[in-house]
Amino acid sequence: MSDRVTRKGKSQPQKEEPKQAKKQKVQKETYDVAQLQDIAHQLRIHSIEMTIASNSGHPTSCASMAEIMAVLFFTKAGMHFNPKDPGNFGNDRFVLSKGHAAPILYAAWSMVGYIDSKELLNLRKIDSILEGHPVPKLPFVDVATGSLGQGLSVAGGMAYSSKFLDKINNRYWVLMGDGEIAEGSVWEAAHLASHYKLDNITAIVDVNRLGQSEETSIGHDVNVYRKRWEAFGWKTFVIDGHNLNQLTDAFDQCRNVKNQPQVIIAKTFKGKYLEMENKEDWHGKPVPQAQVDFVKKQMKQQDGFTLTPVVPTQIEKPQQSHFTLEVNYAVDGKQSTREAYGKALVGLSKTDANQQIVAVDGDTKNSTFSIKYKEAVPTNFVECFIAEQNMVGWAQGFSCRGKVAFASTFAAFFARGFDQIRMGGISGSQVKYIGSHAGVSIGEDGPSQMGLEDIAMFRTIPNCVVLYPSDGVSAERAIELVANHKSPCYVRMSRPSLPILYSNNEVFEIGKSKILKQNDDDKILLIGGGVTTHEIFKAAKQLSEQDKINVTVLDLFSVKPIDHDGILNAANKTSLKTILVVEDHYSEGGLFEAVSSCLSLNNEIKIHSIHVDKVAKSGTPAQMLSLYHLDAAGIIVKVKSIIQ
Amino acid sequence: MSDRVTRKGKSQPQKEEPKQAKKQKVQKETYDVAQLQDIAHQLRIHSIEMTIASNSGHPTSCASMAEIMAVLFFTKAGMHFNPKDPGNFGNDRFVLSKGHAAPILYAAWSMVGYIDSKELLNLRKIDSILEGHPVPKLPFVDVATGSLGQGLSVAGGMAYSSKFLDKINNRYWVLMGDGEIAEGSVWEAAHLASHYKLDNITAIVDVNRLGQSEETSIGHDVNVYRKRWEAFGWKTFVIDGHNLNQLTDAFDQCRNVKNQPQVIIAKTFKGKYLEMENKEDWHGKPVPQAQVDFVKKQMKQQDGFTLTPVVPTQIEKPQQSHFTLEVNYAVDGKQSTREAYGKALVGLSKTDANQQIVAVDGDTKNSTFSIKYKEAVPTNFVECFIAEQNMVGWAQGFSCRGKVAFASTFAAFFARGFDQIRMGGISGSQVKYIGSHAGVSIGEDGPSQMGLEDIAMFRTIPNCVVLYPSDGVSAERAIELVANHKSPCYVRMSRPSLPILYSNNEVFEIGKSKILKQNDDDKILLIGGGVTTHEIFKAAKQLSEQDKINVTVLDLFSVKPIDHDGILNAANKTSLKTILVVEDHYSEGGLFEAVSSCLSLNNEIKIHSIHVDKVAKSGTPAQMLSLYHLDAAGIIVKVKSIIQ
Repeated sequence: MSDRVTRKGKSQPQKEEPKQAKKQKVQKETYDVAQLQDIAHQLRIHSIEMTIASNSGHPTSCASMAEIMAVLFFTKAGMHFNPKDPGNFGNDRFVLSKGHAAPILYAAWSMVGYIDSKELLNLRKIDSILEGHPVPKLPFVDVATGSLGQGLSVAGGMAYSSKFLDKINNRYWVLMGDGEIAEGSVWEAAHLASHYKLDNITAIVDVNRLGQSEETSIGHDVNVYRKRWEAFGWKTFVIDGHNLNQLTDAFDQCRNVKNQPQVIIAKTFKGKYLEMENKEDWHGKPVPQAQVDFVKKQMKQQDGFTLTPVVPTQIEKPQQSHFTLEVNYAVDGKQSTREAYGKALVGLSKTDANQQIVAVDGDTKNSTFSIKYKEAVPTNFVECFIAEQNMVGWAQGFSCRGKVAFASTFAAFFARGFDQIRMGGISGSQVKYIGSHAGVSIGEDGPSQMGLEDIAMFRTIPNCVVLYPSDGVSAERAIELVANHKSPCYVRMSRPSLPILYSNNEVFEIGKSKILKQNDDDKILLIGGGVTTHEIFKAAKQLSEQDKINVTVLDLFSVKPIDHDGILNAANKTSLKTILVVEDHYSEGGLFEAVSSCLSLNNEIKIHSIHVDKVAKSGTPAQMLSLYHLDAAGIIVKVKSIIQ
Repeated sequence: MSDRVTRKGKSQPQKEEPKQAKKQKVQKETYDVAQLQDIAHQLRIHSIEMTIASNSGHPTSCASMAEIMAVLFFTKAGMHFNPKDPGNFGNDRFVLSKGHAAPILYAAWSMVGYIDSKELLNLRKIDSILEGHPVPKLPFVDVATGSLGQGLSVAGGMAYSSKFLDKINNRYWVLMGDGEIAEGSVWEAAHLASHYKLDNITAIVDVNRLGQSEETSIGHDVNVYRKRWEAFGWKTFVIDGHNLNQLTDAFDQCRNVKNQPQVIIAKTFKGKYLEMENKEDWHGKPVPQAQVDFVKKQMKQQDGFTLTPVVPTQIEKPQQSHFTLEVNYAVDGKQSTREAYGKALVGLSKTDANQQIVAVDGDTKNSTFSIKYKEAVPTNFVECFIAEQNMVGWAQGFSCRGKVAFASTFAAFFARGFDQIRMGGISGSQVKYIGSHAGVSIGEDGPSQMGLEDIAMFRTIPNCVVLYPSDGVSAERAIELVANHKSPCYVRMSRPSLPILYSNNEVFEIGKSKILKQNDDDKILLIGGGVTTHEIFKAAKQLSEQDKINVTVLDLFSVKPIDHDGILNAANKTSLKTILVVEDHYSEGGLFEAVSSCLSLNNEIKIHSIHVDKVAKSGTPAQMLSLYHLDAAGIIVKVKSIIQ
């Protein structure tokens, strides 16, 4: 069998190959270099025409990688995939980390017969799915790219999943720009991939020398790249990225490297084979139409080709199980919600017949209690060390492979991965983020360790569910809910040990709050979450007993979506039509603003707030709650000031 | 002159040395190793006692670096500083990037005579400034640390400032843990420091092998570290980090390296000289009191020492200038606010006699228009390449050195540096962050490039000013305001060219909005910012002309602090007591929530919202505004639905 590109007719993807194709060893073969070169030129021409049609885009960034794409898509050394079925779970996967080169990605999928070539000219148009940067609406795209330096992390999680969990023999190809290598996230990803010996990843660095606004800091000094990748444990190949023989050779060799990821450092020229080759000031701009002819003149005028792809076995993406959980707390027990997280994962694993749950952590597992899951299901726990950006990317990679991915660290440290979380939101990535040590209630460690903006951050992610449990029962139920929910989710956990508030069979729902105390003569409604739920509860009891003031106590639980009706009804029943929100978070974007905005059309209810209103400091948890008036004493003072 | 540590009495910092001390070459000398060793042990004992007193903290993480601290603080090879005046601008600066080792930092400043040793036992107490992790309330701390992997970036900006801008001969010493080397931000920082040949930085990696929850991924394989740092362009010294001769030798040699930053890779043991030396499960826990005696027994019982520090010239931190700006737009002109940023910086430079303004960018300068400042004042523009975390850290470093630091990139990409921005907030760092390409109005590039959560993010930073100008005049005035404002600031800039709305002499204030249209019979109040200000203005004119419906038009300008009175008054004057907020941002944490929460105690005004309510896509700017009903047509429909 040969995958030589022949001249016969237009792209006609052949039928799937028999199953043994998957395991066959790739043979070195004679490529028809002239024809591959024409394919590369045709990819250039598409990229030029597409960006002229959209009057925006990055044709010169595509031109530098045209030969790489030709070898990747049109030789046996490159991707093994079913061109008719880009979503095949057994395909090799390609991650275009330099997402601004999207046109050439779409052009390649057109030339293998998947996208109609006319559709290419709808690049960046509002009713086309060929967006300016790739998004996973396209079945050959796993994650949105376009914020640089993120592709390798996602590929890491996917590659780990294939190699160690699914035991699928597919490979991951990640194309990066040279400019993006300056992103630290790339080195986090490089480190972890070599640490776990992921030989099923090949990275290709398109070293075209020119960034957006000037030469990159390393320019064409490919040896610097070689040394860095070698130092990070990768097998390196430094080649001329426009030389098709060198490329196919390197790709072939990569397939045979064992226990080590590989990187092809391809020296290229931005705008190669165009008149603006290697020139500055051509980043992100369409080039004149005349460049199409300029490229055409360099072609051998071969009039077509047949793709003979290596098609791997068809594998269906696994369906996600439904998980259930037994919760078992003593009525008078105590538990931190963070520890409940670990318990819940272990509990869920009992209904996880296919071991789909994967947990990652960034060297905080003995604080977040994800360590409990590691102890129970060691194969499905992956330590990502102190590198939160990459941890988030890996979790997204696991999610791409049908896993139910949980990522845990201190709530504060998810800020480190906000851009990755943001891009995951664009992808619709279903990662469950679990942030422990939220708020000033952690105490002595001080503000660097206190998540006080995490709710604001996760609330901005489209369709992200944000839950904030207040005891062991609600924490475990929150984990059960998000495990079964098909969206990004965030659950905010607290450090202190807290009394059990709910019975083991209490039913929690996304979008529903809980009323813990309500009387007919309540004056106002107190809303809390996590530790402050306990403080408002204490305050309410004391107000009732000592001052004969009754107030409603509502545990918000679901911050996003918020329980509009539940809150409104509870507030409307109070005699003062007044709410006091108490939160261990900054005011901005937190519980208070969530409640205020959800009632913005109501003009009967007043909403007061107690929140962390300045930079925090060290002290005991109780002192911290007191300092910001988040404790029962502070709440009582505030309630009295409101009702007077 | 010798800085041998002698036995005479307690720490008695000597008077400052004559000025020539600053420039004198450091001579290799005979250290009294036994006494340095006792100092190291005393640092250990302090760390143990402090963490016992606070019943929390990280004594074993201190124990691994005690010898490093002894050499750094008590030999001429180490820091040159005035122990009486830790704030001296001419001192060498020490950045404890592994902030959890704060106790030994405080202990060292106690042993050089600056902190009363009794105060040490107030570690982590609510009324002590000796917090769990260092904060710049302490004059020997430049930036808050405790979120790992950030110290080297800040030191980079400071070192660049000393070497190239202030031409001060001081040095920067950064101590990192080995676990934090997994953070990509470290490699961003390492890359830029070597790129700019910052020979005035010495990093020390405390390779104590043990992370928080398990062994680090590299363990004690110091050669891996050596290769990585060398590949990133650093001069490396691999030593036994408990060997005082090797340490002083390495420190000495670092002082003589030219045009290259240096790193000392110190192999150490966590809990060294304690019974829990090199043992797991002792991270972040006080050790038993008996360990004090255990260490004492290893001391030579030398009964004191005299510090003879190398004291550099006293230099005052420069006072910040007041900046003013001439603004000059034609009434019928057009201008993108992002371009106005570049113009404003150039304009400000004319009153910047001391060249205090420093601008950094992450290879987007031709999009953010910071390139204009580079062209005007090339010495004070620093290209940080595609590494936003480090760019934010460098900007903070410049700010620490009295510069007025502006950092610009796409609004979306500040998400990459959120943790650094968060820590900068804790430090009170006065960086001015300028985010361009905000919102869906950028058009074709698609969601990865659209800042739709940037306002939410920056609003969470305590004391952070958030401005959102809508034309060239207000954009330049915003830059003038933040240049003179002593807090973190964020200014949100837009991509499209927009008509000029204001006269050149219009006065803008932080905390004040602008009314662009108001009549006696206005039905509702429209609030916009940036591009949506133009759309509400257009909608208002059309409603007035075509439908005889008058509405008030308010340009929010200052998102934080928000103009509570201005908004309330304008809303109260409308007949329907109704606001419609229109924003090119997600709802959560944006303009709508800022307005809703500021009026949460008012129960007469209803607040409606138009915002970006799902993941965006590619299309023209006009199509994007239309898709989310953010354009005049969408606003008119909404207004009519409200008033009916």
